[in-house]
Amino acid sequence: MVTEAQTLGEVSEEGLLRSIFPFFTLQPGLLVGPGDDAAVLATSGRVVATTDSMVRGRDWLDEWSSAADVGAKLLTQNLADVAAMGGTPTAVLVTLMADPATPVAWARDLARSIGEGAARAGVAVAGGDLSSAPAEVLVVSITALGDLAGRQPVLRNGAHVGDTVAVRGTLGRSGAGLALLQRGGDAVGPPSGIQQQCLDHHRRPTAPLAAGVQAAAVGATAMIDISDGLLRDADRVARASGVCVALSGAALRPHVEALVPAVGDAAARECVLSGGEEHSLLATFPAGSVPAGWQVLGAVAPGSGVTIDGEPQQPRGWDHFHQ
Amino acid sequence: MVTEAQTLGEVSEEGLLRSIFPFFTLQPGLLVGPGDDAAVLATSGRVVATTDSMVRGRDWLDEWSSAADVGAKLLTQNLADVAAMGGTPTAVLVTLMADPATPVAWARDLARSIGEGAARAGVAVAGGDLSSAPAEVLVVSITALGDLAGRQPVLRNGAHVGDTVAVRGTLGRSGAGLALLQRGGDAVGPPSGIQQQCLDHHRRPTAPLAAGVQAAAVGATAMIDISDGLLRDADRVARASGVCVALSGAALRPHVEALVPAVGDAAARECVLSGGEEHSLLATFPAGSVPAGWQVLGAVAPGSGVTIDGEPQQPRGWDHFHQ
Repeated sequence: MVTEAQTLGEVSEEGLLRSIFPFFTLQPGLLVGPGDDAAVLATSGRVVATTDSMVRGRDWLDEWSSAADVGAKLLTQNLADVAAMGGTPTAVLVTLMADPATPVAWARDLARSIGEGAARAGVAVAGGDLSSAPAEVLVVSITALGDLAGRQPVLRNGAHVGDTVAVRGTLGRSGAGLALLQRGGDAVGPPSGIQQQCLDHHRRPTAPLAAGVQAAAVGATAMIDISDGLLRDADRVARASGVCVALSGAALRPHVEALVPAVGDAAARECVLSGGEEHSLLATFPAGSVPAGWQVLGAVAPGSGVTIDGEPQQPRGWDHFHQ
Repeated sequence: MVTEAQTLGEVSEEGLLRSIFPFFTLQPGLLVGPGDDAAVLATSGRVVATTDSMVRGRDWLDEWSSAADVGAKLLTQNLADVAAMGGTPTAVLVTLMADPATPVAWARDLARSIGEGAARAGVAVAGGDLSSAPAEVLVVSITALGDLAGRQPVLRNGAHVGDTVAVRGTLGRSGAGLALLQRGGDAVGPPSGIQQQCLDHHRRPTAPLAAGVQAAAVGATAMIDISDGLLRDADRVARASGVCVALSGAALRPHVEALVPAVGDAAARECVLSGGEEHSLLATFPAGSVPAGWQVLGAVAPGSGVTIDGEPQQPRGWDHFHQ
């Protein structure tokens, strides 16, 4: 019997697994779930696969993020990458590498959060791995699989001059939430409405998953999820496609203005341009075919890099070994 | 330009990735490889998926294992799990979470080793993730995907009374290699031939990958790869199938005798019964259908657990939080 007051070092691996498997609801495409050597999934002939990880002390701080926050965020990061290919996420594998002194409650909260988020997205938790790690180490890694249902994947390299650049979802909220936490966050008083939205999006970002399929269906020419900042991710599309992503200051302004009450003028602009972990989708569409719910941010132009109102921008944002 | 004398903290993430991508050879089924939001793979309708990780200080010690050893071993662990389902491994995703003080040379040796091993197995390195980690932390995680080519997966729960139990591959070599290292290993003098084989198998185990498909094709009723020790893994088959795995002492004896010159009598027996990380395949077959290259170890009997010559055995072996 596993209780939440125990540590991982005090329970058996199999006991812990038995106690968390109930958090993982079955999905029709999951033919063999956790508990065998590997999982087996039904696919339509092309499978999308991606992986992303979070490391305590680097990708989260326990003071700011609960186990449930970490699980929800890492799940979104992975599912957004599948969506950014035009795929429908179908399954995840979850790895926890933890100091044996980690409370069982932490591991169970993580698993419950991932299980709930996966169920909401119609995604199976198909398997995973559990390893002990040295003192203080806590690492979570997810691999997500998805299905293209016969469609071609939407890559980063297909943007054409004349295409329209559009975003689905918010800009800068996660970055603004992080800025608030770095300034002292909740400690300085109850956050305003927009501040709370930013804190929530930083801790548990959501991604417009269905919009990835929507974009693919109308012929999006390139797509990426904004994980490392608008400028940096737009620059990736520009470089892969051999074009310039020409953003409009007027189109960005409402995104900046929405954040000014949360973090002030200068930080709001910086968050919109360079805030990471947003997980909105940035795509390019043939002119005239931007689907409902997407906001136009500019156009694809000849040249290279990213501009705002014609001014070249230095891509800045998240680099894992240079923070 | 990335040089081997630098640390991960001194080079850009994208520079490092550019320097390791050439180690990953293309495979026909890889439709989109590393560098986009996710990879895309061709599959035949059912995909096998598994993940396994190694943590420095827990799963390896730098004194005993090079980066190339770690890469080769983790790759085998993952591919063996796909084989144990009767699948053909097709692709891996590789995650490295590393202290920025880690030498670039370590990361490149790891990537080269995984790339070379994957190429030998006809497996694509489809993508991965790179994260910084706190001081001293070094974690590698692989997710492997595989294809069933229309076959049913071979699970742990299909063993029937009367089936023959057989193994493909060695027993106890990795455990014996570990025992030698724990006793001082190479330091006490040049290892004998069998000792060197054990050290090699501990550092870079190989798995009989094609034998998984071979077993599935002739109707194996249950299969598992020996990752946590013969007794523990046989017990998993016994429990999942609701049967007793009845091993024969005479059939095990040659495996023990082969290791006696390496580690002595008592340790040889313990390694064969409980040594982990061997990655041989253990399967049950309808009587009379054991394929070539497999060695019979016993039979499936009514009852539960594992016996040797009728004596019940306590499954012992690797538990990640109880070593």
